Amino acid sequence: METRVDSSSDPVLRREMFDLPDGVIYLDGNSLGPLPRAVPGRLARAVEEEWGRLLIRGWNEGCDGLGWLDLPARVGDRIGALIGAAPGSVMAGDSTTVNVVKTLSAALALQAEVAPARRVVLSDQGNFPTDLYAAQELLAALSRGHVLKVVAPEEVEAAIDETVAVLMLTEVDYRTGRLHDMEALTAKAHRAGALTLWDLAHSAGALPVDLTGAGADFAVGCGYKYLNGGPGAPAFAYAAPRHADRIASAVAGWMGHAAPFAFEPGYRAAPGADRLRVGTPPVLSMIALEAALEVWEGVDMSELRARSLALCDLFVAEVERLSGGEPGLELASPRDGARRGSQISFRHPEGYAVMQALIAEGVVGDFRAPDLMRFGFAPLYVRKADVREAAERLSAILSERRWDRPEFRVRAKVT
Amino acid sequence: METRVDSSSDPVLRREMFDLPDGVIYLDGNSLGPLPRAVPGRLARAVEEEWGRLLIRGWNEGCDGLGWLDLPARVGDRIGALIGAAPGSVMAGDSTTVNVVKTLSAALALQAEVAPARRVVLSDQGNFPTDLYAAQELLAALSRGHVLKVVAPEEVEAAIDETVAVLMLTEVDYRTGRLHDMEALTAKAHRAGALTLWDLAHSAGALPVDLTGAGADFAVGCGYKYLNGGPGAPAFAYAAPRHADRIASAVAGWMGHAAPFAFEPGYRAAPGADRLRVGTPPVLSMIALEAALEVWEGVDMSELRARSLALCDLFVAEVERLSGGEPGLELASPRDGARRGSQISFRHPEGYAVMQALIAEGVVGDFRAPDLMRFGFAPLYVRKADVREAAERLSAILSERRWDRPEFRVRAKVT
Repeated sequence: METRVDSSSDPVLRREMFDLPDGVIYLDGNSLGPLPRAVPGRLARAVEEEWGRLLIRGWNEGCDGLGWLDLPARVGDRIGALIGAAPGSVMAGDSTTVNVVKTLSAALALQAEVAPARRVVLSDQGNFPTDLYAAQELLAALSRGHVLKVVAPEEVEAAIDETVAVLMLTEVDYRTGRLHDMEALTAKAHRAGALTLWDLAHSAGALPVDLTGAGADFAVGCGYKYLNGGPGAPAFAYAAPRHADRIASAVAGWMGHAAPFAFEPGYRAAPGADRLRVGTPPVLSMIALEAALEVWEGVDMSELRARSLALCDLFVAEVERLSGGEPGLELASPRDGARRGSQISFRHPEGYAVMQALIAEGVVGDFRAPDLMRFGFAPLYVRKADVREAAERLSAILSERRWDRPEFRVRAKVT
Repeated sequence: METRVDSSSDPVLRREMFDLPDGVIYLDGNSLGPLPRAVPGRLARAVEEEWGRLLIRGWNEGCDGLGWLDLPARVGDRIGALIGAAPGSVMAGDSTTVNVVKTLSAALALQAEVAPARRVVLSDQGNFPTDLYAAQELLAALSRGHVLKVVAPEEVEAAIDETVAVLMLTEVDYRTGRLHDMEALTAKAHRAGALTLWDLAHSAGALPVDLTGAGADFAVGCGYKYLNGGPGAPAFAYAAPRHADRIASAVAGWMGHAAPFAFEPGYRAAPGADRLRVGTPPVLSMIALEAALEVWEGVDMSELRARSLALCDLFVAEVERLSGGEPGLELASPRDGARRGSQISFRHPEGYAVMQALIAEGVVGDFRAPDLMRFGFAPLYVRKADVREAAERLSAILSERRWDRPEFRVRAKVT
């Protein structure tokens, strides 16, 4: 009942479109989005009717006649609509990491033509480690003297200078939710002659993004967090239309060829961002993501943002009201909503055990070393009552030291 | 009934484990393997019970407690058992093309240490185009003067010399089924100081492969052909254990880090072939592939090969017996079974239309320009009666010119 009341009062909340476990307050959609109800049936149809019955004809006739083959572009367009990208400029596929390699190598190739002396790829400590790993190993392979320069998030702006070839940042810090000013940093990068590569893993579906308006050059992002595409769902890559016809990536393949089924001996890149396609798309995972994206139909991103801010602010207020005196408990996220994404993190010296105790009591967030408890507030399915309840349970766990049990200290592989 | 009789008479045939459409003779498993019956239920469970109920706990607790996280290694080991690879040396994930980039860049990095003057990546015209595209674009990005040298298949052996850094071949030609001698070519490459990269897209599950015995250095392959993992299923990459701890790839990410969840700022490659993992694995597609691989339980690969040869030889004999006088019909595959994989191709000037007519009559093969009709004979589900029936229908279509209709000349996007 509560769901319906909540839904009718807020056009963004569409909890009934998700299959959430009973008795769980799920505040970890920034790690893995929950199952949209549209997915199981759609995926079963893809498996049994398309793969099973159409077999290879599915490439042309699957997806109700639209064909599996165009899934990367079709799913890319659905994502593009959420991040201010023009149709045809986003391709779904591969992992976020592989997309970093594609787009970073493409950006470096563009710079090599106009500014070969630039050797710095500038990033920050708030970038997700895999982006840094991908860059580090790509630069080592290229062995042209590029350096990956990693500064503190607050030092990024000052570090943008004429040595920078590519500014590579994750817009929303996976640990604290701190939000970079994409438009300002992109503008500064461009004034300095640098290109930009934005990772939207914690942005797409979490807050309004305007790649076109910000003038971003390249972007990548994740399909399984706020986009709810399922574990390890295909990621996405964006190239600004002004670059797309000129980009050359270190990772290329037949699906990005101008005529994939001509089987020509030499590579001829497809026009536009289609060249960001590489191998055969993982159809089953792609169809799950496509079905998951239906929940965005009719969502106004500014209303999404307003609801996100309200949920996050409420959580901070409730936790501080109920547990303000708890020693060592400290807000790790920016207090100003305009400077953060759709998550709230608190530090606590026993954060790992506290989070395990919370999960055992049905409030699912997660933990990032050394002391961060992360709580994601996905506006599509988290209710205000969930936020209040989560704050109350956290408070009780802290005040009664319910976290202080051996079983809450055992570390799992993924935490 | 026929299925059961056929199965009991041949331990390899396990047609009842596949969900094949009624009335279809499916000879295109070399393009897309059919749906194994184990997949729909397993995938539904992964979606509804693991993703839906376990949510992030699935990374540790999904797959009956084995965890989603280890899927690349677990699925890799299942594939490894079919291709003569030691446990831990094969990682499932990404596309075949991306795996070419990973392994080719790794092989070039090894050569850069010991033989930096070698500049040739040697391949042949029988390689699948995406491998050539991937190599071409990688070498361009590396810009260290490497050249991709592409010779005719029969000229490969003579072209292996001291200039070659990496010999990169697809073992079975996707057009004709011609089989390279992996052991002999690898040995010659090693004598010349070259490393080898074998694409097993049309080998894995089609014939016995012994990567270890042949001394192959690197390999990649496809999950959706003879391994029946579903459209665009995850591919795989192999690194010989003697190299694995030393390889550095241009494509690297957190899942190949020695401690992915320590979130260290710098990349430290995991020991062994685990470093061939890159981004978060596509769990749903990976679970479909894992379930599909169950059909290999108890399959003896030499028995598989014997059955494959019998089916292919029977098809050649029947087609030539029934249609030997057809003008322009010509066997494009090696007549000697020892020199081909598990497919038979015939040339015909009207091959495209003939294949469309065949498909319309329920015999599904495929066509490759300019004139090749391809027929794949997957020993796990193709029966001798299917082979005879396919040859008869082909013969009737040719002799009665049933292919000569406008609708059979319209080219689809994927043919």
